[in-house]
Amino acid sequence: MIILGIDPGYALLGYGAIECTRTGEAKALDYGVIETSAGVPFPERLERLYLGVRQLIELYKPNQIAFEELFFARNTATALLVGAARGVAVLAAQQSDRPLYEYTPMQIKSAVTGNGHADKSQVQEMIRILLRLKAKPRPDDAADALAVALCHANTLGPATEEFQIK
Amino acid sequence: MIILGIDPGYALLGYGAIECTRTGEAKALDYGVIETSAGVPFPERLERLYLGVRQLIELYKPNQIAFEELFFARNTATALLVGAARGVAVLAAQQSDRPLYEYTPMQIKSAVTGNGHADKSQVQEMIRILLRLKAKPRPDDAADALAVALCHANTLGPATEEFQIK
Repeated sequence: MIILGIDPGYALLGYGAIECTRTGEAKALDYGVIETSAGVPFPERLERLYLGVRQLIELYKPNQIAFEELFFARNTATALLVGAARGVAVLAAQQSDRPLYEYTPMQIKSAVTGNGHADKSQVQEMIRILLRLKAKPRPDDAADALAVALCHANTLGPATEEFQIK
Repeated sequence: MIILGIDPGYALLGYGAIECTRTGEAKALDYGVIETSAGVPFPERLERLYLGVRQLIELYKPNQIAFEELFFARNTATALLVGAARGVAVLAAQQSDRPLYEYTPMQIKSAVTGNGHADKSQVQEMIRILLRLKAKPRPDDAADALAVALCHANTLGPATEEFQIK
């Protein structure tokens, strides 16, 4: 089972592809960020994010795709931009006909560390241990994407909720 | 010259296609809304909006596409949804390789009525007159989309700005 985790963002969109076995082990296939530059017009940045997510899906052929839920933004202007980035990433995933899932930061922290209020460093150390990486994954957006993929792997089963946003 | 105007929205996305002649006349080819239902999951609603805008572009083959700028939202949760809707609409337009433009509500009101603070009813009456329609265009989202298309038609020329959002 291959899971693609996505941490949606406008300047940096984090991704992490993991493979899980039936014995509960997981290994990282790839992780990183899709970056868009401040000097590039808005429509081109959206297209870059959209094509980037499509390419990841073609490359790693995930069985399922998990998103970190966005539920805060500094202000509405930022929310419009981050919302657009998330929109085109979700669209790319939707068009791939994979099942989509979404988890809140607290669900992700809880699944990965057992503590819904764990700090970033604790989460990254647990990702390192679970995936047997030599160092904590960088940058933060890539680590967050691996975390949501691991969270989904941990919660696989009948209790898993589909994308619930209306 | 055919111009497609778009008023981005999540539940209702307004569109208006107009044809302008060199003598400055304009006629409406079509106007209406793409609607998404509250009961449908977020990813499917985004796909509906994206495919809807693509279909409009294929059907009317606009030379240029003009968006009404979103710069307010009640709160960040709404902004995330409206931002996603705008994101997939802009993506569909970007992928068509047409030049994209964007205007603020004040620019649109000013171009259509001569008064940047005109009320909705005045704007709709001017649209009716300019496009020689029998009645004011309905619903509001479709009227807003015709207004941004007319605004773009009025400001065509070297002063026209390209999509400027970074």
